[in-house]
Amino acid sequence: MLNVHNARLQQQLDFLIEIDRLKTVLRQSQIANGSRRENTAEHSWHLAMFALVLAEHAAPKVDALHVIRLLLVHDIVEIDAGDAPIHTVGANSDAQLQAETAGAQRIFGLLPADQATTLRALWEEFEAAQTPEARFAKSLDRLQPVLLNLLNGGGTWTQNAVTLEQGLNRYGPTIERGAPSVWYAIKPLIEAHYRDVSQP
Amino acid sequence: MLNVHNARLQQQLDFLIEIDRLKTVLRQSQIANGSRRENTAEHSWHLAMFALVLAEHAAPKVDALHVIRLLLVHDIVEIDAGDAPIHTVGANSDAQLQAETAGAQRIFGLLPADQATTLRALWEEFEAAQTPEARFAKSLDRLQPVLLNLLNGGGTWTQNAVTLEQGLNRYGPTIERGAPSVWYAIKPLIEAHYRDVSQP
Repeated sequence: MLNVHNARLQQQLDFLIEIDRLKTVLRQSQIANGSRRENTAEHSWHLAMFALVLAEHAAPKVDALHVIRLLLVHDIVEIDAGDAPIHTVGANSDAQLQAETAGAQRIFGLLPADQATTLRALWEEFEAAQTPEARFAKSLDRLQPVLLNLLNGGGTWTQNAVTLEQGLNRYGPTIERGAPSVWYAIKPLIEAHYRDVSQP
Repeated sequence: MLNVHNARLQQQLDFLIEIDRLKTVLRQSQIANGSRRENTAEHSWHLAMFALVLAEHAAPKVDALHVIRLLLVHDIVEIDAGDAPIHTVGANSDAQLQAETAGAQRIFGLLPADQATTLRALWEEFEAAQTPEARFAKSLDRLQPVLLNLLNGGGTWTQNAVTLEQGLNRYGPTIERGAPSVWYAIKPLIEAHYRDVSQP
C-alpha cells in the first residue's frame, strides 16, 4: 500500500489502485484480432469511445459525456462479482446481483463518502436503464460484443451454440431501445452471419 | 470488414474496430499486481478514472469531462507509432513525433470528416499541453505509472537504472504543473523508495 499524508487523497489513491484489478477480469469476447479474450478495463475504454463517436445515434438531448461517465464505471463491480456472460444462465441471477451489490459497497466504499455516493449512483443509474443516457450506454454495451463476434466468425455465439433467434432476442431490444438506427444497420449483419454458417 | 448500408455509420464503425488494436499496444509499466505489462487501451480507461476521481486536485474551473475526453483519445496514435517509453532516448524524438502525426492522419481519418477534425483536435490539445485541461490530463498520464512503479518495487525505474534525480525530473514538473497537491503527496513516496533500495 502507498501511504500519503492527506487522508482524502489516500482514499482516492486506494480506490484507483484497487480498480487496477479490472484489467485482470476476463470477458467471454475475443478482441477484434482473435488473439485473446478481452478484459473488462479495456472493454470499458472501448465503450467510452463508442459513446464519443456514436452519440448522434442516441435519443435527442442525450448527454454524451454523462454516457461516458456511466460506461467508465459500469463494470467496476466485476472486480468482486466477475463477468456474467450474456449466454449463461447466471447472468441475471439473484446471486450475481447480490455479488455485484456487495462489490459496489466495498469498492466504491474505498472512496471519500461524497465520491462513493456519486460513483455508486452512476452504477445504479446504468443498471436501472431508465434514463436516456443509461439506455444509450446499455445499447453500446450490447453492440460492442456483437461487432467482436462478427469479426471472430461467430465468437461466443458459436461457443455457446446460440441460435439466430436467441441472438436477436438477447441483443436486439436493448440496442434498439438506446440506438435504433444502429440496430437497424447491424441486424442484417447478424442475419447474414447465420445464413453463411448454415450454408458452408 | 463489416459493411452496413449507411455511409456515415460505416466510417464510425471502421474507426471503432480499428482502435480495438490499442488493446495490443504494450507499455513498459506492469499492471498493479505485477503479472504482465499494461496495454494502452486499459491504461486509457484507468486514466479516465483518475480524472473522474482526482478532478478536485486540478486548477480551478478545469472541466473534468473534457479531461476525460482528452485522455480517452490521447494515445490512439500509438496503434501506428507504438508506445514511446519515458526512459528511452526516442520518447520525444522527431521520428516519434512524425510517426504519431502520420498515425493521427490515418486513424482519425477513418471517421467522417467533422469527427476526424474533432478527435484530432483533442489529440493536438493534449500534446500541446497549453489548456488547463490538457495540463491536468498530462499530469495524470505521468502520475499513474509512478503508482504502478511504486507498487512493483521500482518497475521501469529499476529496469532502466533510473536515478532518483532523473525520476524526479521526468515526472515532477508535469505532475506539479497539472496537479500540485498530488505531486507534493507523491514525491516523498518516490524518495522513500530510493532510500529503501539504497539501504537494502
